[in-house]
Amino acid sequence: MKVGVVGLGYWGPNLVRNLTSVDACTGVVACDLDESRLKRVLQRYPGIHGTTSFDDVLDDPEVAAVVVATPVGTHARLAHAALRAGKSVLVEKPLATSGRDARALVQEAGRLGLLVMAGHTFLYSPAVQVARELVHKGAIGRPLYLQSSRVNLGIHQSDVSVLWDLAPHDLSILLDCIDERPNRVSAFGRSTLRRGPSDVAFVDLEFPSGFVANLHLSWLAPTKMRRTTIVGTRKMIVYEDTNPEEPIKVYDKGLNRPAQDELDQYKVTYRTGNVVAPRVGTWEPLGAQLQDFLVRVAAGDTPDKREQTAITVVDIIEAAEESLALSGQPVLLSESGPIGASPASAASA
Amino acid sequence: MKVGVVGLGYWGPNLVRNLTSVDACTGVVACDLDESRLKRVLQRYPGIHGTTSFDDVLDDPEVAAVVVATPVGTHARLAHAALRAGKSVLVEKPLATSGRDARALVQEAGRLGLLVMAGHTFLYSPAVQVARELVHKGAIGRPLYLQSSRVNLGIHQSDVSVLWDLAPHDLSILLDCIDERPNRVSAFGRSTLRRGPSDVAFVDLEFPSGFVANLHLSWLAPTKMRRTTIVGTRKMIVYEDTNPEEPIKVYDKGLNRPAQDELDQYKVTYRTGNVVAPRVGTWEPLGAQLQDFLVRVAAGDTPDKREQTAITVVDIIEAAEESLALSGQPVLLSESGPIGASPASAASA
Amino acid sequence: MKVGVVGLGYWGPNLVRNLTSVDACTGVVACDLDESRLKRVLQRYPGIHGTTSFDDVLDDPEVAAVVVATPVGTHARLAHAALRAGKSVLVEKPLATSGRDARALVQEAGRLGLLVMAGHTFLYSPAVQVARELVHKGAIGRPLYLQSSRVNLGIHQSDVSVLWDLAPHDLSILLDCIDERPNRVSAFGRSTLRRGPSDVAFVDLEFPSGFVANLHLSWLAPTKMRRTTIVGTRKMIVYEDTNPEEPIKVYDKGLNRPAQDELDQYKVTYRTGNVVAPRVGTWEPLGAQLQDFLVRVAAGDTPDKREQTAITVVDIIEAAEESLALSGQPVLLSESGPIGASPASAASA
Amino acid sequence: MKVGVVGLGYWGPNLVRNLTSVDACTGVVACDLDESRLKRVLQRYPGIHGTTSFDDVLDDPEVAAVVVATPVGTHARLAHAALRAGKSVLVEKPLATSGRDARALVQEAGRLGLLVMAGHTFLYSPAVQVARELVHKGAIGRPLYLQSSRVNLGIHQSDVSVLWDLAPHDLSILLDCIDERPNRVSAFGRSTLRRGPSDVAFVDLEFPSGFVANLHLSWLAPTKMRRTTIVGTRKMIVYEDTNPEEPIKVYDKGLNRPAQDELDQYKVTYRTGNVVAPRVGTWEPLGAQLQDFLVRVAAGDTPDKREQTAITVVDIIEAAEESLALSGQPVLLSESGPIGASPASAASA
Repeated sequence: MKVGVVGLGYWGPNLVRNLTSVDACTGVVACDLDESRLKRVLQRYPGIHGTTSFDDVLDDPEVAAVVVATPVGTHARLAHAALRAGKSVLVEKPLATSGRDARALVQEAGRLGLLVMAGHTFLYSPAVQVARELVHKGAIGRPLYLQSSRVNLGIHQSDVSVLWDLAPHDLSILLDCIDERPNRVSAFGRSTLRRGPSDVAFVDLEFPSGFVANLHLSWLAPTKMRRTTIVGTRKMIVYEDTNPEEPIKVYDKGLNRPAQDELDQYKVTYRTGNVVAPRVGTWEPLGAQLQDFLVRVAAGDTPDKREQTAITVVDIIEAAEESLALSGQPVLLSESGPIGASPASAASA
Repeated sequence: MKVGVVGLGYWGPNLVRNLTSVDACTGVVACDLDESRLKRVLQRYPGIHGTTSFDDVLDDPEVAAVVVATPVGTHARLAHAALRAGKSVLVEKPLATSGRDARALVQEAGRLGLLVMAGHTFLYSPAVQVARELVHKGAIGRPLYLQSSRVNLGIHQSDVSVLWDLAPHDLSILLDCIDERPNRVSAFGRSTLRRGPSDVAFVDLEFPSGFVANLHLSWLAPTKMRRTTIVGTRKMIVYEDTNPEEPIKVYDKGLNRPAQDELDQYKVTYRTGNVVAPRVGTWEPLGAQLQDFLVRVAAGDTPDKREQTAITVVDIIEAAEESLALSGQPVLLSESGPIGASPASAASA
Repeated sequence: MKVGVVGLGYWGPNLVRNLTSVDACTGVVACDLDESRLKRVLQRYPGIHGTTSFDDVLDDPEVAAVVVATPVGTHARLAHAALRAGKSVLVEKPLATSGRDARALVQEAGRLGLLVMAGHTFLYSPAVQVARELVHKGAIGRPLYLQSSRVNLGIHQSDVSVLWDLAPHDLSILLDCIDERPNRVSAFGRSTLRRGPSDVAFVDLEFPSGFVANLHLSWLAPTKMRRTTIVGTRKMIVYEDTNPEEPIKVYDKGLNRPAQDELDQYKVTYRTGNVVAPRVGTWEPLGAQLQDFLVRVAAGDTPDKREQTAITVVDIIEAAEESLALSGQPVLLSESGPIGASPASAASA
Repeated sequence: MKVGVVGLGYWGPNLVRNLTSVDACTGVVACDLDESRLKRVLQRYPGIHGTTSFDDVLDDPEVAAVVVATPVGTHARLAHAALRAGKSVLVEKPLATSGRDARALVQEAGRLGLLVMAGHTFLYSPAVQVARELVHKGAIGRPLYLQSSRVNLGIHQSDVSVLWDLAPHDLSILLDCIDERPNRVSAFGRSTLRRGPSDVAFVDLEFPSGFVANLHLSWLAPTKMRRTTIVGTRKMIVYEDTNPEEPIKVYDKGLNRPAQDELDQYKVTYRTGNVVAPRVGTWEPLGAQLQDFLVRVAAGDTPDKREQTAITVVDIIEAAEESLALSGQPVLLSESGPIGASPASAASA
């Protein structure tokens, strides 16, 4: 199967590099409107084909799958074009810039018997998979809250806020572990450039089960930090993506919960045990993701629960952006379908 | 000058220990209703006096100053009693459990020509003083935002939330550096014990100047973290209280701001320079605080701007508790006087 | 039982503080020739007795045990005097400045039915006890080598080298874990002050079993490091005294040893598993040590294997000093009795 | 200029990858006896030429320079062959397995008007260059000692000891900073596999100026550590290669040296100031090294002081191996020419 790669900016060359070593991929067609970018990639990977015309990719009958790595605002349009040309699509995160567009894309793929998949690469990270499995098999007890910090100095994008850029990572990890759709979102932040989008943001999420989450996202921070804490009733996990030696640590710590009838005048005590850093694999997440994409395409897969989750990621960010515009007013997320209005904005409607 | 110490629970013995080596203090009268606690302290510090009656402390004419280290809910009542007995008071943080009570206390002290001071010990920490000076002298440029995490496993208090317990530290540091009263507060969190107060909370603060801040507070976290980041237009500071070797780091990093007329189609670039960990002193903050308190008492000081700041700390926590009860709805803080209602709650009134 | 403390310099006040909370100790007599030091200690601990005369301590019939915390050169003389006065002695590390003196002291105590014990406080550290137990119960397999770094900026002593000051800690920990007497010692280092003793030293130890060890000791280092690695055939331990959260880490890592007959053309492979930081207690080592000393005195103990180990510590340092003077020439350690000469120096003799 | 790469094991593919982006290199001829290795490299870099015959490389008149990345034992032989074929050579570290062979190689290159250069890649690391410049310009005062740890779990080589594998890195960095030839070397260690070469080693170096150095090298260690400390009379440097954020830290710390006439009864005091992590570039050292090699080849360079240093690296390791075989007996290094015997071994000869 030949694979088209559209967009050779920051991420595209990584896609090409990984595709050249995925077995199922028999050829790559790289595409960018910018001839100099295209030339640079072809020079480095002389075995692949290149074009500056997206139509060339769509018209190539051997290309069964396309990876879209263009600016966020163009994702939905290019993915639709690929689907209409009969090709399954892997769209770099986020899937689209609105829940409505994301839903339309997934529905269209299903209707055509094709796959549209979101590029949530972190779900293929060995460390995230260890964390998820620990949560799913109940190792931490009942999950209570998650706090995640993803901050760095860099990659300011002029067209979208830090939410669209960084939150997809944390939200995809969060939903993968917790498997529940939040019902309430608020976001707070600021743009340090008067007229630009927010470059630092704090997002709060409330879930029907009582679980809560907080994200701290920033393009303007002194040190790179990628740290997620998941606290459960029995144990606690810290996932630190910047610690290659011990990316996951499991703390046998917790609250000794008082008996129900002592709750009123309780004395809370704490339990502290060993800390374990489980062994974590070392594969490259992007390679694993492309491998999985091509396996799904070859199997004739259409969108399933994973793509519903990708839609939820977009829903949450859309709601968070709305809350950001309202200085942190919480926004309700309906259980399914389009994002519900906040009480305040509903009242003013 | 003799000094009374009321409350010999967790913090009281530290006060006694430090007072015995402050020159201006010629004697300590320790007081606790619980005889066994009192006995333990007297055994360890045989040179001091002890009593189980607060009135004994108030009646002692040689006692010119009293330190109140009792549970939060009793602060205001005991401090008023001390003032009425003609004694200046140092009240452990927070000053009171409502802005109204805090104001009343400070006004009463002023009226009587006495001092009431809040025990914001971190303001006497050598690292905090270095951070504040850097901000005040403009070393980081214009401050843009602050993010602070103060999390740990432990000291659950059944009577108050994590906000009243931990936020006074971060708010006193924040206001000391930034010197501005926020106009909007929201808080989000959860109680992991059904009927108890919140043990994890996230607080967002918006200031009239555009500065924003976020606090992450938790009694239920796998590792102790006390980390404050202050980002300015020119430099960034990280203050890590758990790093004794390099508690303060100054990062010569920032955004290269585009010229005003290029703002619409800007390309943001970043600047990275040296990192400096300035030398930080090693004195014990509590000793320095008690020393300062006694100096102010000896000088006949009455409350000044510092106590107004202590009131603001209480105002903010009170507003944050209100927001917490409203699932994160932002609450407005009036410029002075009592806390204003949020737009939503005002509308419903 | 009353306890005498001789020497109130850097360490003495810590001894007094801990003794006041050890149950078996009914009273403390503190002694220092320097009246100002004595006064300072008495001011802080008004419940104890003080004297500037060592004879006062020796003459007090209620004093059954004496702790010697004077400069290294005076240890043996003062300890002998205490023994002759019928008192058991805890001598700050090292026991003496020569193996001969150390042996004489231990023999004298045994002859008089008294105890002389060396103040190897680290043996009472909760982290060291966890490490020792892991090694003793075979958790790491057969021990292969130990590397220890104990470096800092500070406490230069004009009378002894960094070896006498810091090596007792590492050697007592090493011998406690490994339980074997080395047969060969070499040391290398330099004095940064032309005429002073060495302030940085590297010590190599070879044991009859094939085990080897290396110590890195320095008074002149940019950051405080106290890190010991113990590598075994099955697992590896890192003990980091400056990491209060995870002082001990056990790495399930090792070499997959090839079968015996493949040894000649082997391909070595490695095994990597989980990392575990076991829970470690939080008591103060010095308190536990004094407690143990008084228990042994009360039981009428005389020196046993523990004191033989303390002698070995002195033997090793004496040999290391000899090697240091010979620019790193290895020095042999006889199995018992006085330290043997190196082959080279024996040949030249 | 075309460049030949001989040996496509662990390091060879990195050489090929970097050469494809060095401007001066117009083509690559990759060579390995193992056809499957060759095939794998050609698949990944379709633009280059390949051969299983070294003679093909030597016979190609367009190949002006050859990079040798074969097992250590073959370095000298292959480099000589390349020189005789009129090609300049970059030999992976170490240059040869004896000082005699290394000297012969360098002399031969000079005689033929060609260049032979050792692949000491760390000298092109941005962090090492910052450290060297700090030392050379006197920022740390007079250098007193260096301690370096380079330990990891892995890459056991059956043919050579950990000394030949890891010490070239630390020795090249050390000599680059200190610019002095040691006069005395001792090494101590052990092989954990009965009949294999040493996999853990400690090396001590003494220099005529009084400077001393210690290296800790291991293939059998729980965590990767690459840490070099350089202590000077005025400041101290820590270079931590595994810390990408702050690889170099400069500590404004030191000893306050007493006046000359107070030396006998001195009281040493310490000075502590700021810590600075200077900005360090981010280029890839291997690319910079290949670039420099080709520039020197194009300029017609013959060996100079840099190659003398590469010889010294080999001399030191040869002496260290000798000491290792003598259980740590120090070995003297003559100022030039072959390595001198130790006093003891000379005496016994």
